Amino acid sequence: MMNRKAVSVLGLGDMGTALADALLAAGHRVTVWNRTAAKADPLVAKGATRADTAADAIVASPLVVVCLLGYDSVSEVLGPHTDVLAGRTLVNLTNGTPGQAREMAAWAAEHGADYLDGGIMAVPPMIGKPGAFVLYSGPSGAFEAWQPVLDAFGESHYLGEDPGLAPLHDIALLNSMYGMFGGVLHAFALVRSAGGSAAEFAPMARRYVDTMGAYAEVMAARIDAGDYADDVTSNLAMQAAAYANFLDTAEEAGVSTELITPIHSLLQRRVADGHGHEDTASLVELLGK
Amino acid sequence: MMNRKAVSVLGLGDMGTALADALLAAGHRVTVWNRTAAKADPLVAKGATRADTAADAIVASPLVVVCLLGYDSVSEVLGPHTDVLAGRTLVNLTNGTPGQAREMAAWAAEHGADYLDGGIMAVPPMIGKPGAFVLYSGPSGAFEAWQPVLDAFGESHYLGEDPGLAPLHDIALLNSMYGMFGGVLHAFALVRSAGGSAAEFAPMARRYVDTMGAYAEVMAARIDAGDYADDVTSNLAMQAAAYANFLDTAEEAGVSTELITPIHSLLQRRVADGHGHEDTASLVELLGK
Ligand SMILES: NC(=O)c1ccc[n+]([C@@H]2O[C@H](COP(=O)([O-])OP(=O)(O)OC[C@H]3O[C@@H](n4cnc5c(N)ncnc54)[C@H](OP(=O)(O)O)[C@@H]3O)[C@@H](O)[C@H]2O)c1
Ligand SMILES: NC(=O)c1ccc[n+]([C@@H]2O[C@H](COP(=O)([O-])OP(=O)(O)OC[C@H]3O[C@@H](n4cnc5c(N)ncnc54)[C@H](OP(=O)(O)O)[C@@H]3O)[C@@H](O)[C@H]2O)c1
Repeated sequence: MMNRKAVSVLGLGDMGTALADALLAAGHRVTVWNRTAAKADPLVAKGATRADTAADAIVASPLVVVCLLGYDSVSEVLGPHTDVLAGRTLVNLTNGTPGQAREMAAWAAEHGADYLDGGIMAVPPMIGKPGAFVLYSGPSGAFEAWQPVLDAFGESHYLGEDPGLAPLHDIALLNSMYGMFGGVLHAFALVRSAGGSAAEFAPMARRYVDTMGAYAEVMAARIDAGDYADDVTSNLAMQAAAYANFLDTAEEAGVSTELITPIHSLLQRRVADGHGHEDTASLVELLGK
Repeated sequence: MMNRKAVSVLGLGDMGTALADALLAAGHRVTVWNRTAAKADPLVAKGATRADTAADAIVASPLVVVCLLGYDSVSEVLGPHTDVLAGRTLVNLTNGTPGQAREMAAWAAEHGADYLDGGIMAVPPMIGKPGAFVLYSGPSGAFEAWQPVLDAFGESHYLGEDPGLAPLHDIALLNSMYGMFGGVLHAFALVRSAGGSAAEFAPMARRYVDTMGAYAEVMAARIDAGDYADDVTSNLAMQAAAYANFLDTAEEAGVSTELITPIHSLLQRRVADGHGHEDTASLVELLGK
């Protein structure tokens, strides 16, 4: 067993509960608090200590892990307890924007706490299991000091001093995932409209998405280079023509086109702007930077 | 070397060229035709026979593979040659809707040809290599007779007699892929807005999407069962709250939100309808079937 530490977890929703569970499994002395106190019961049964107030939970440990619904709830819960933060490390694993993370880091610094922001790249059942990873940003010293404990959640990836880096990458990864989920959900609706089973179709979709995932790296290189016209084997004009069939197919099938129209619009605009001979990666030019 | 067959390929864009190449590599006697004749030159240099007209190409082989831009171009190219179709097998690997495939199958039958519709689940450089697969639908006898030749393109998957099945599954798989591409392109734009490199980020995105891809199969089972409320560990209310941060982050970063708003809208509507305790799979209920 590793070095035993005292760690507090504030927030025992699905994710906070999984985090506290992983800390208990790693042998740490875990204090837990949740607004709805009953959610602590199963953890207490496994050896966690229940704190009656958020302040009690903060005071109980030098490392305070926070996992609430959003930054509003974090402010509500931590805000009244600025007097007990000094000398502690706050690790905020609540989803938020880079701007919110920077603001909270400044607030924590004002009150003498080290602040790490984090993004959990896993669902609760994956916590502490292979495949889970967690992004961190903030002071490197705080990260290094606590990494052995944080590793209980999954592989720890440190991204840099700017506290906004973890949420930025977290959200970029979540956007990648939701894109895939949206595509797959649309596909399930299509297959089911023809009387097919989503479960029979899913392994083929997974295989195809995984295979074509290799192309994400090809697109990335093109985007960094800003060169979309070299060695193109799936030109945008052809893609725009095929994509029109996707809309017709959804309409024939009685499936909403709402998830698939935005890419059609990008393809059409890019072709209309004279980029029909370019590669898929060039669509990024319409998104901003 | 396998049994040598005579095969014609109509359409020598990026994909048709890759198909003809794979047939040559498999040792077949390949006749090629393209509207812009010069595109046949590299294939002729490798041993293909050039047909001066589409009719000549059709007459040259019992198996005629067609890969043009869309069904309009297929009708334009094949339409005038109904007199030479009888007794041949047409394999149409052009992207189209299930309805278009059924219509073309009926038209081919009228003129005495067997008709297989196909969907190529690969980009041209993958043709004939591991990872490529091709979906087919139409008469099983025609598929079985020609499968040994068609296998030159990649793994052949036969889906059934209804010619619309291959395009339906083709488009469902392409929608899955484009969803992932859209998510990843948005992510690249975000990362680059903060001065990061898409190429450095891409392997992490690929890893995360592949890992979460396992969840597609979980969602499929929930959708087939119509049960979204059991054993939920990432509830929709939490997801809707986090998703609002994705929009704020894109706006802060100057990245267009157009690719990510549709899923936000699904999440919001589903939560407003009282399904906030359910799982992601339940979003499919808003898409149709
Ligand atoms: N679940 C996942 O798949 C996942 C994955 C990665 C990251 N995350 C992130 O982890 C965080 C927690 O998610 P979750 O899945 O655990 O959500 P959840 O199961 O819905 O739990 C929400 C938690 O926030 C608390 N809370 C909400 N508003 C509050 C307030 N005003 N004051 C005090 N407590 C408040 C709830 O307390 P009560 O019990 O009293 O309501 C509960 O502990 C979110 O930021 C989410 O984005 C989740
Ligand atoms: N490339 C891919 O990644 C990929 C993957 C899977 C499926 N597909 C499908 O394969 C098909 C071909 O795609 P591709 O990538 O080869 O496209 P492409 O490189 O743009 O080639 C288009 C082909 O269609 C021909 N064509 C267009 N309009 C025509 C007309 N009115 N009459 C005669 N010929 C016409 C072109 O002839 P000219 O040379 O004379 O212009 C050319 O041979 C499409 O349905 C596509 O959706 C492509």
